[in-house]
Amino acid sequence: MVNELKPGKDSYMSISEVLAHRVSIDHFDPKGVVSDAQIAELVRSAQEAPSSFNIQHTRFVAVTDPAIKGRLREAAFNQAKITEAAVVFVLLGDLRAHEDYAVRIRAAAAAGHVPAGVAEYLAGTALSFYANPTASREEGLRSAGLSAMALMLAADGAGLGSCPMIGFDPEAFRKILGVPERYFPAMIVVAGPTAPNNMGRKPRLDVNEVLRINGAEFPG
Amino acid sequence: MVNELKPGKDSYMSISEVLAHRVSIDHFDPKGVVSDAQIAELVRSAQEAPSSFNIQHTRFVAVTDPAIKGRLREAAFNQAKITEAAVVFVLLGDLRAHEDYAVRIRAAAAAGHVPAGVAEYLAGTALSFYANPTASREEGLRSAGLSAMALMLAADGAGLGSCPMIGFDPEAFRKILGVPERYFPAMIVVAGPTAPNNMGRKPRLDVNEVLRINGAEFPG
Repeated sequence: MVNELKPGKDSYMSISEVLAHRVSIDHFDPKGVVSDAQIAELVRSAQEAPSSFNIQHTRFVAVTDPAIKGRLREAAFNQAKITEAAVVFVLLGDLRAHEDYAVRIRAAAAAGHVPAGVAEYLAGTALSFYANPTASREEGLRSAGLSAMALMLAADGAGLGSCPMIGFDPEAFRKILGVPERYFPAMIVVAGPTAPNNMGRKPRLDVNEVLRINGAEFPG
Repeated sequence: MVNELKPGKDSYMSISEVLAHRVSIDHFDPKGVVSDAQIAELVRSAQEAPSSFNIQHTRFVAVTDPAIKGRLREAAFNQAKITEAAVVFVLLGDLRAHEDYAVRIRAAAAAGHVPAGVAEYLAGTALSFYANPTASREEGLRSAGLSAMALMLAADGAGLGSCPMIGFDPEAFRKILGVPERYFPAMIVVAGPTAPNNMGRKPRLDVNEVLRINGAEFPG
């Protein structure tokens, strides 16, 4: 996988330049290809995003098949990006990820990697924290955001464009992809080689509009 | 702001190495300081995260005042990171950000920067998409995740440790910080100079456990 930093105006980009370099892409090369191996590399990088308790709520469905992309596009307001981008990543939240985590951390204790008392505290806290399905769903959304940001930066590093998308029918996506009940589609990231004539970086609010220090005196 | 990439094993880090370099930090230097200017730089970098329609839902409350941090810690299960980290970023979701967006995009059309029809389409779509308060809240959570990931990478680039946190009482935080009703605390990111003896990178699931291609055959 080509994942070199591109030369910036001096030599290499700083992390703040890396963050500014990624922009949301509207137009992809419909002949672009991303291999299964490259998809796995991108997802490995996305997995570096943190998660609550290290539960790792996010699952990734990568769609490259043109027929499946066509059906997803119909369930996503016919947005062209869905079929034109080489790969459609559907990020799923796992509503029961905390249960698997409890099993994992207890197994780690049984294997002597974690003190038993620590493991039991972590397992019990995670299980009670996410017993409420709304809490679990909301964690899936936060985690999808964390994972998606990492995924898009990894794509940028690989010379691919990307775009996050939320305009789609999650239940239609569930049926098309055969998503089991315990997962829910939280967001999409499309990625692939880009076409010309993309718009570039969209303007951001001034930092003074979005930041307060030691208080929250924002307009009501 | 020092925001250089640190030398990797060859020379500079690739983006995948940047993502792996950031780890969640448990122990911060309680004498560590992050200046208001550096806080603003970090937030500017976090603002590079994308948002639905470019609505920019995330607001940042940066808390450096020891007395306020002490009160937040009491409302966050007494977690030491809250007072030991130099700065506590409380990321707020703006439940009415789409309304401000509609005003902005219509103003851009009035100024001749965007075709009037396009602006009206975008404004109308955003207003209808987020008229449902649950949709608006869920977008705030996704956006907080996107923003938090960018913020933590920016902190890493500035030589600071960071940690995302969700274990806190949002209504208590609202009262302590004076957060107006239209915003809700979506997550915390603490950041600052680190102390010794942090644990390092936590293990991730194998990519084959979290990725499927052209289908969603995950365990039910």
